[in-house]
Amino acid sequence: MVDIAVLGYGTVGSGVVELLDKNKDIVRNNAGEEINVKYILDIKDFENDKYKDKLVKNFDIILNDKDIKIVAEVIGGVTVAYEYTKRLLEAGKNVVTSNKELVASHGKKLLEIAKKHNVKYLFEASVGGGIPIIHPLLQCLEANNIQSIVGIMNGTTNYILTQMIEKNMSFDKALSQAKELGYAEANPDADIKGYDTCRKICILASIAYGEYINPDSISVKGIENLTLEEVKKAEEKGYVVKLIGYANKKSEAEIEVFVSPCAIKKDSPLANVNDVYNAILVTGDMVGDTMYYGKGAGKFPTASAVCSDIIECVNLKTTREINLRESRIMINKPELKVLEGTDLPILEE
Amino acid sequence: MVDIAVLGYGTVGSGVVELLDKNKDIVRNNAGEEINVKYILDIKDFENDKYKDKLVKNFDIILNDKDIKIVAEVIGGVTVAYEYTKRLLEAGKNVVTSNKELVASHGKKLLEIAKKHNVKYLFEASVGGGIPIIHPLLQCLEANNIQSIVGIMNGTTNYILTQMIEKNMSFDKALSQAKELGYAEANPDADIKGYDTCRKICILASIAYGEYINPDSISVKGIENLTLEEVKKAEEKGYVVKLIGYANKKSEAEIEVFVSPCAIKKDSPLANVNDVYNAILVTGDMVGDTMYYGKGAGKFPTASAVCSDIIECVNLKTTREINLRESRIMINKPELKVLEGTDLPILEE
Repeated sequence: MVDIAVLGYGTVGSGVVELLDKNKDIVRNNAGEEINVKYILDIKDFENDKYKDKLVKNFDIILNDKDIKIVAEVIGGVTVAYEYTKRLLEAGKNVVTSNKELVASHGKKLLEIAKKHNVKYLFEASVGGGIPIIHPLLQCLEANNIQSIVGIMNGTTNYILTQMIEKNMSFDKALSQAKELGYAEANPDADIKGYDTCRKICILASIAYGEYINPDSISVKGIENLTLEEVKKAEEKGYVVKLIGYANKKSEAEIEVFVSPCAIKKDSPLANVNDVYNAILVTGDMVGDTMYYGKGAGKFPTASAVCSDIIECVNLKTTREINLRESRIMINKPELKVLEGTDLPILEE
Repeated sequence: MVDIAVLGYGTVGSGVVELLDKNKDIVRNNAGEEINVKYILDIKDFENDKYKDKLVKNFDIILNDKDIKIVAEVIGGVTVAYEYTKRLLEAGKNVVTSNKELVASHGKKLLEIAKKHNVKYLFEASVGGGIPIIHPLLQCLEANNIQSIVGIMNGTTNYILTQMIEKNMSFDKALSQAKELGYAEANPDADIKGYDTCRKICILASIAYGEYINPDSISVKGIENLTLEEVKKAEEKGYVVKLIGYANKKSEAEIEVFVSPCAIKKDSPLANVNDVYNAILVTGDMVGDTMYYGKGAGKFPTASAVCSDIIECVNLKTTREINLRESRIMINKPELKVLEGTDLPILEE
């Protein structure tokens, strides 16, 4: 039996705990051992919770427990989560996470600490929720020079855009509806302003090109000022509008990365990705176009990816090492044609 | 430096050799060592070939060379390829392959031999060409009970169907055109009669359910008798016709598996997969729907997957063990509603 700890008992944290309970048999079978959640760390009280006996408020209990070799960090944010992750890795514990903000901003440093202490820092859940994307990039496409990564990586904005496109709904009305349905947070800025997509494309591009790409260094435009007129103009000309995270290796010396609502031809595989679904198109020099599609967020889809990383730690699988160079090459916004009468760059996919 | 051998110097074999040469740097970087093709086995002569110094005709040279720890079997078929694979595994060599026919018919036995001799038998390239699908199923979705796998897994037939749907072309004419373009073989039976799709869905279903599913045990219908009238009738009712490999876990005691042209709603993610592209929709109890899309065949896409398996052998990554039970449960054809006026089962995806 392997004891693990879960840091943060919000949506994803409770998903991880419930998944490991509900799918105990299949997880035991695939990990080769039973996985036991020994601790759940949260500052809140959960009086009537099924797993309340596991709840602790003191991080040091987990840090100092030698039985804990694997910790899932699903707190989110870059303050406490960074501090805890750093200390856990330094204490020789493997850490898995869904925290894209932390991976995008401090992933390079944390991977170096993990390497130094001979443990893993895994983050399959940080991009695309439950969609396998980090492992395919690292393992299955490793014989390719990755040319480009173009994706719809944020479910909230894709839901809003789908409403605008299919139901002629204004941005404000679609956002209200997304909030009502639980698809958008009370403060939706990280989603609608494109920051979330920015973190994700930076994580993927860093892995694909072996260069650390700082999310602060790229051009980001969200959908908060997109008008129904622009959406309709795109429609008339055979395009749909999607919020795109884009990375393209222009040469050995230049990578183009940006986030923006873009006009996509209706027959592109990305054009039919609707509602809260995500899809990421990865083009390699040998394999050509490949696409990965699924629910990019949510309790159990995200828990699915966190738990596959936990199982990877249990199996002691040799994970391909990620060594990121400090970015030495130019990171630019691509020069794309703009759809007439709008501000929308046209993606020729 | 790691010495490897390639068995079979046809389309895929030459793709593997060329990829390892062309992408030498990235392969060395990701494998941690240079990969050197020491031998290429083929009975034919290749007088003016760039790699003719590596060509051998005697299998025993490879079998008896202790430096060869990894062999790519891309001969195809189940006779010579089976014999060679068996002897290589028994001699303690890792084998990677794109040979779906062999994996579908003798994969269980070969996995057992590989396990006994502590080597790997890897076959990412056997389904979906270069599309990552075996690894995502085995590794990334391992915290899920896989419910269903539904896919377009044959590029030849998907090309023919796309011509029939979009250009009103008859089956015979579309087949001729596919032959001219090199998308269909001189004898296209394995593709158009659905045998190729059958092998692939059996491989995926075996992995997903841990049960060996014999390709001879499932209902297979190809597209060779599909008429333009049926295609049009589907179109009128909002459907497109696709050749589908289908596996669904109905209960702990019953799996439904079949191959047939099916009617698919136009807004399904599978409906917009055209030409020689493949796409496989995998549904897990936690992750929900995920889809994997790309070129399902071809020289370099397939070589991309073969080479990622070679790199996995070089890295000595711990691959998740596949243990297949001899099928104890019922394998049935699903009872699906048929589209009025046609023979096409309707897929509610």
